[in-house]
Amino acid sequence: MSYPYYNQDLHGPYETHNIGTLTLEEGGALRDCHLAYATFGKLNKAKSNAVLITTWYSGTSKIMEQAYVGAGRALDPAKYFIIIVNQIGNGLSTSPHNAAYPANGADFPKVTIGDDVRAQHQLLTEKFGIERLALVMGGSMGAQQTYEWAVRYPDMVERAAPIAGTAKITDHDVLYNQSLCEAITSDPAFKGGRYANGTDVAEGLKRHARIWGVMGWSTEFYQQRRFEALGMVSAQDFIDSFMGGYFGLMDPNDLLCMAWKWRHADVTRHTGGDLKAALKRITAKTFVMPIDTDMFFPPADCRREQKLIKGSELRVIKSVDGHFALLGADPGYVPQIDGHLRELLAKQ
Amino acid sequence: MSYPYYNQDLHGPYETHNIGTLTLEEGGALRDCHLAYATFGKLNKAKSNAVLITTWYSGTSKIMEQAYVGAGRALDPAKYFIIIVNQIGNGLSTSPHNAAYPANGADFPKVTIGDDVRAQHQLLTEKFGIERLALVMGGSMGAQQTYEWAVRYPDMVERAAPIAGTAKITDHDVLYNQSLCEAITSDPAFKGGRYANGTDVAEGLKRHARIWGVMGWSTEFYQQRRFEALGMVSAQDFIDSFMGGYFGLMDPNDLLCMAWKWRHADVTRHTGGDLKAALKRITAKTFVMPIDTDMFFPPADCRREQKLIKGSELRVIKSVDGHFALLGADPGYVPQIDGHLRELLAKQ
Repeated sequence: MSYPYYNQDLHGPYETHNIGTLTLEEGGALRDCHLAYATFGKLNKAKSNAVLITTWYSGTSKIMEQAYVGAGRALDPAKYFIIIVNQIGNGLSTSPHNAAYPANGADFPKVTIGDDVRAQHQLLTEKFGIERLALVMGGSMGAQQTYEWAVRYPDMVERAAPIAGTAKITDHDVLYNQSLCEAITSDPAFKGGRYANGTDVAEGLKRHARIWGVMGWSTEFYQQRRFEALGMVSAQDFIDSFMGGYFGLMDPNDLLCMAWKWRHADVTRHTGGDLKAALKRITAKTFVMPIDTDMFFPPADCRREQKLIKGSELRVIKSVDGHFALLGADPGYVPQIDGHLRELLAKQ
Repeated sequence: MSYPYYNQDLHGPYETHNIGTLTLEEGGALRDCHLAYATFGKLNKAKSNAVLITTWYSGTSKIMEQAYVGAGRALDPAKYFIIIVNQIGNGLSTSPHNAAYPANGADFPKVTIGDDVRAQHQLLTEKFGIERLALVMGGSMGAQQTYEWAVRYPDMVERAAPIAGTAKITDHDVLYNQSLCEAITSDPAFKGGRYANGTDVAEGLKRHARIWGVMGWSTEFYQQRRFEALGMVSAQDFIDSFMGGYFGLMDPNDLLCMAWKWRHADVTRHTGGDLKAALKRITAKTFVMPIDTDMFFPPADCRREQKLIKGSELRVIKSVDGHFALLGADPGYVPQIDGHLRELLAKQ
């Protein structure tokens, strides 16, 4: 399968590192597992200025760079060595569509957030010799990875900034996630994942994009016709051109790999189901940052967890862009994020 | 097609009235259009105590009776003559599954909220000689009908109580509605509406039920495991047994008929697209009652319209049950509704 989407032109420059065989939590393994990553700035001699940025569902290192990294920003390459690692399944790192037979496509094994974090740990330690991270941050599934880092490797994570995500998946989120997956898998052209080309599943991908349109933004986003600021002339145009155009280029099995991982994100795997015990492991200085209009990672769900993290603070971001405020398209979003990150990074 | 769902045993007692041929706003007509309705109490001599209750998507007169009518309630049959009219397409009134050839099933014509309200008007005037309604009330699509009544027949509606619904459909609601429809129509067994039996479309109906599960309740409903109060042991059980069990017995074309109507609800059809002018026509004493956790008819959308209705008041209902608080399963819901309705009915 060839995709016009997953390449250096659109998402680069990025490098890849082969971590060898990654043993998976759910059984099986990923052979020749490679992680695609992009770095900005320089690692100082003390190796004390490393920042890890994780990626969300369908996101790549490029959007994280564009929305969160830059001169004069909180995450300034002049000050920090910033590593953005593409999650497994996102199309740049090892994913169903680019894996080798026989573990590719519909036969790609189930990968967990924990698998991603162990793979990232291997990359950071063996490639860069990093033993301590000044900050781990990410949004949505990136927040799930951030929590996993802080719980799994508490001694390595100095600060954590999970944005618009939870440490343990909620019942509501599972339902939402299942609806997204069903939109794709119900398409007869999906053929149980054994389609010839991802674009064969166009109808399913369109339905998936529409459901994202319902839950990903906010009701106020539509009332205020915020889609016009994104160059769209109507809500219908926004769904067809912006949302549909975005997801329509992606590989269905890649999306489903990430969706499965998202739906099973749960730091209580470390503590036999005990959320309190899992979050108690966190020693990182932590700012929990939900977005006030988020329809599926709402502030209340984030606050519930934040209260269990010692010394943490809840910093609610205000935006009418809902969950997708993460993209940074709302000009009011960036100063808030940068303000909180600056404050967090200043904490000793 | 025979359905175990649409009958007197489950939804009765109700009566039917044939209003003859209903000319439709979108073109075409419904022949032998019958409305199923239930009445409670007695119409007084002055015919001044009539209350009209409308129905929501998939709802029938039975749930409206159970949730809103009763001795000691605001809508007490000892005091009011209460008429609950089933909307066209809900399976009891004329609907795709029970209409006569050739305008049945997939060939059932498009019906609007305005068509429903004109049909209800004919029932009330020709069957009961009612010329004035002490109150029109309804939730969700019932609120859409309530607004249509107050705008179309302002002299006839003394008071209006639209709960959890808007006068003009929003962009966000259209997307949500389309996602629900696509969940059904994407099922190959749907066959463009030309299935042999509604249960053939079981997979599509299940997906439709799950999306309702995502948007119909609230994130707090799931966090607080409110589904346990409904006899369900888990969120999955709730979706499979409660939500799936509810919609699984219904006719797909009936649901799609109502969904189309819902998606096109718009009182500005009377005023060339001018919402301010349309709502200015309302002379009814009006309480606009959104539910605070409603994910698709949120308070902000309702408030925007309420401000355009002269002398109206916004009364926000508090419940963790989201949009489905309408069902009255939250014990805190009923006293709030009854309190507001009593106050509204006391207004002279």
